[in-house]
Amino acid sequence: MSARLPPDPGALTPREARRLFRDGLVTPTAGWSRGWTQANLVALPRDLALDFLVFAQRNPKPCPVLDVLEAGAVSGPLLDGDVRTDLPAYRVYVDGELVDEVPDATGWWRDDLVAFLVGCSFTFEAALAEGGVPVRHVEQGVNVPMYVTDRRCRPAGTMSGPLVVSMRPVPADRVADAVRITSRYPAVHGAPVHVGDPGAIGIADLGRPDFGDPVEVRDGEVPVFWACGVTPQAAVMESRPSLAISHAPGHMLVTDARDADYLVP
Amino acid sequence: MSARLPPDPGALTPREARRLFRDGLVTPTAGWSRGWTQANLVALPRDLALDFLVFAQRNPKPCPVLDVLEAGAVSGPLLDGDVRTDLPAYRVYVDGELVDEVPDATGWWRDDLVAFLVGCSFTFEAALAEGGVPVRHVEQGVNVPMYVTDRRCRPAGTMSGPLVVSMRPVPADRVADAVRITSRYPAVHGAPVHVGDPGAIGIADLGRPDFGDPVEVRDGEVPVFWACGVTPQAAVMESRPSLAISHAPGHMLVTDARDADYLVP
Repeated sequence: MSARLPPDPGALTPREARRLFRDGLVTPTAGWSRGWTQANLVALPRDLALDFLVFAQRNPKPCPVLDVLEAGAVSGPLLDGDVRTDLPAYRVYVDGELVDEVPDATGWWRDDLVAFLVGCSFTFEAALAEGGVPVRHVEQGVNVPMYVTDRRCRPAGTMSGPLVVSMRPVPADRVADAVRITSRYPAVHGAPVHVGDPGAIGIADLGRPDFGDPVEVRDGEVPVFWACGVTPQAAVMESRPSLAISHAPGHMLVTDARDADYLVP
Repeated sequence: MSARLPPDPGALTPREARRLFRDGLVTPTAGWSRGWTQANLVALPRDLALDFLVFAQRNPKPCPVLDVLEAGAVSGPLLDGDVRTDLPAYRVYVDGELVDEVPDATGWWRDDLVAFLVGCSFTFEAALAEGGVPVRHVEQGVNVPMYVTDRRCRPAGTMSGPLVVSMRPVPADRVADAVRITSRYPAVHGAPVHVGDPGAIGIADLGRPDFGDPVEVRDGEVPVFWACGVTPQAAVMESRPSLAISHAPGHMLVTDARDADYLVP
């Protein structure tokens, strides 16, 4: 089966979006189902789940857990569907090595996997746009650029790893707005972790992201960095689990929760 | 060894307070070490720790996890000390039954225990007092009254249980202030879960709390209920762990974190 890119992905309900992905459409999800929360997926064996959840608790900015499914479960309150099929693309890791990227993870799934849904900064992008802050990768129709930094997360048991960030270029006179707006979404990475010089956090070249696509940084714009949900993936890989399944970067779960559910007053 | 109640417990540093408790002083800690965060303790075997942490993730208002110690560890970033000795009193549960209440838990400790530190509403009491909202149990020098409600928490694995609440009587014209002030501390139970009629949440008699002491509710005051850190204890007990060690209700860990660390803008 295959599915075609709809004319206005932002207007789809989460159920409609997940249906297209289940039918085989592979595309980054930024801008999809406007107003509905997107989530990172990390599924790993139950014997590593405690370490992962403690790691998330210790590193809440990059790892804001929205929900944890019961061991072996493939559905939960955040999705009326199946986490094995309803994302556009998955990465499969065996012993910490990437072995496969697939549009359907059913063939790799195991009954002892615990699926974690982790907040995604796409959630606050509609609010940024409404607040007059440009979201360049959505404008350009590409995946958000993501970078591995030289900052380390606080480890937990077998889990440790670097902080991974997403970057959005923001006009200098809009940086304060970008901070103010995203601060109101602590459950989906919240305020930026760094503003300005990429080198200060170990990023050599903005034009060569570790994940996703490069975007244009225009004159008068400042690169602004938010903690990214790829961080937990990086930590899981360092623990070399026998099996781990995640979304492919930028190819998220579109959930049945509204962005407003994660807005603080 | 024994230690005597100091003249001004609120002026003690956390280290000084923990020293007194280590030396044998047994007292509720409301009002102690003003400006420093207090925490609930729940320690349970590692094989139940994942269920507990997922339970906390699903019920963040009653179970805001501030830190998780490594399995077998008795110290961590929130205390320069020893969780087995530095609280004024502990409860010990075997197979879910209360078997002991002790001022020192060392004799009961096991290497496979994972200690969870959970936020406590005492943290926002200084802010309430500064905001002109009376804190009756501190005024009366007693333990905060706590009640088991008829609301159930969202279960996780082997963990399930009722919502437990603490109650503070608030003058009707101060209820809005109480809500506003405590909303700013989501990591320590945040805004009230119920305002007014105790019967509506299954509390038959305010004068007979399930834990702690009754306090006076004066004319013109409304009982206001906050989610309480005894909730996770109740859930742990329902799972009948081979061993669980908690603080005695109201007898908290005084941590090295400042209340302001948990204040959101």
